[in-house]
Amino acid sequence: MDLPARLKECSQRVDRALDAFLPNAAAKPATIHRAMRYSLFAGGKRMRPALCLAAAEACGGAADAALHAACAVECVHTYSLIHDDLPCMDDDDLRRGRPTSHKVFGEGVAVLAGDALLTQAFEILAQARPARRYPVSTMIRELAVAAGSLQLIAGQVADLEGEGRPATRAQLRFIHERKTAAMIEVSLRLGAMSANAGRAKLDALTVFGRSLGLAFQIVDDILDVTQTSERLGKSAGKDASAGKATYPSVIGLDASKKQARSLTAGALRALEPLGRRALPLRDIADFLLDRDY
Amino acid sequence: MDLPARLKECSQRVDRALDAFLPNAAAKPATIHRAMRYSLFAGGKRMRPALCLAAAEACGGAADAALHAACAVECVHTYSLIHDDLPCMDDDDLRRGRPTSHKVFGEGVAVLAGDALLTQAFEILAQARPARRYPVSTMIRELAVAAGSLQLIAGQVADLEGEGRPATRAQLRFIHERKTAAMIEVSLRLGAMSANAGRAKLDALTVFGRSLGLAFQIVDDILDVTQTSERLGKSAGKDASAGKATYPSVIGLDASKKQARSLTAGALRALEPLGRRALPLRDIADFLLDRDY
Repeated sequence: MDLPARLKECSQRVDRALDAFLPNAAAKPATIHRAMRYSLFAGGKRMRPALCLAAAEACGGAADAALHAACAVECVHTYSLIHDDLPCMDDDDLRRGRPTSHKVFGEGVAVLAGDALLTQAFEILAQARPARRYPVSTMIRELAVAAGSLQLIAGQVADLEGEGRPATRAQLRFIHERKTAAMIEVSLRLGAMSANAGRAKLDALTVFGRSLGLAFQIVDDILDVTQTSERLGKSAGKDASAGKATYPSVIGLDASKKQARSLTAGALRALEPLGRRALPLRDIADFLLDRDY
Repeated sequence: MDLPARLKECSQRVDRALDAFLPNAAAKPATIHRAMRYSLFAGGKRMRPALCLAAAEACGGAADAALHAACAVECVHTYSLIHDDLPCMDDDDLRRGRPTSHKVFGEGVAVLAGDALLTQAFEILAQARPARRYPVSTMIRELAVAAGSLQLIAGQVADLEGEGRPATRAQLRFIHERKTAAMIEVSLRLGAMSANAGRAKLDALTVFGRSLGLAFQIVDDILDVTQTSERLGKSAGKDASAGKATYPSVIGLDASKKQARSLTAGALRALEPLGRRALPLRDIADFLLDRDY
């Protein structure tokens, strides 16, 4: 199966599962369930779930074994976007091509919709079938650490605090590793764990995820300056106008592109021990480097 | 041991454990860890942890078996207070006798500190020792459901949406059951599960928790109109000025007191099958009914 078909199938599978896991839109109070679904089913690329399912397959498991984990990471990702977009954070009007949650539902409900999706992530993952080597509680702890105050939230805080101040390359890396790479890495690790991967495979996918996650964020930074809002489905040029440090602003556009290529190459090398089963992961890494949205 | 001594010992035990579970205040970025600790160690009554530990003892277990659960429910409770106090929610300046999180750290960091404490709750609970009847994932699912969009968050949304509108008794009960009773009930259930309680004991504590939780919120409503902000450590008279429906505003002060007494009596009856081991829980229920803060 080629990559676009594979990604589409993955999206559909994850969307069906998310639809079944979430309370329906009419459950009382309807507002919160409408708000959760508005952001969750807004046509996201479902890149983290795709990596999660492909990681399970790369370790010899069935994609379905990782479906709970894939849905959980997407809930965490969507919550983080809703809260990042709030007026007290990045104050953004557009996300995934639509008005942001607080524009539609008001700030109070947007905060609560994010809270609810974060909580939902753990409820979903708690229902996963344990793999022999990995109790479900181990997987939940992994997700909580990646989404917690030393990783995802640390990145967001450092990003907030850095606005309008010049950043060093080290600070930028601190932010990107936490704000983006940690959740991409854990998506791969949870996929591998769901397939009961041994230590060597889990380690290989961890290295792959960390490098790929950094490359992903550098490409995001590049697209912010080279693409239109329409193409991205979110406000372009936003980082620069907010005085945010980005790879292009700190090391320049050409060096950023080179860095993204080099990190992707490193990520691909880490996959070598996994052989042919990791081909879909290679395809995703290539796609993420060359994407224009 | 008398109740004040018991509650003090419980607070100290829970505070020590929370201190050990949380990243220290200097962990990078320091802001988020200072903000998490500012709200968590603000001198709360630790009523939910006390109920959790006492539930474990009422089921014949050691209090320490429920320490992870007790810390987790306190993290969820504190996160919910931080987010409730935000300008886009109840817009409150005072909590636990101190300026609210967003007053001290700004709104962006307050949102993230709440997010981080919610995430921390699951990280802590994921490290609990499983009881024979209850895998840790079962306990995590219970916590996520109680804190989720059909319970805690549903109550908060209904509360937000009800501001300035007259409420019926049924609507008020919908809010109170979800916003307050659900987390009190799950505190007791997680304590019982940590002690490997059988079905009958778990059911008894569930009924106790649901009635006690409602009584607790009615007493809160009463104190809001009868006590000073200084005594409560949060803004008194706030519900009335925000046009919120409360038990006193809907059924009157005397009927509210009667209702709280009757719910507490029902809660105490539910404890009868547990015998003498449930005495500390009885003491807490009596204390919560008669408190003046």
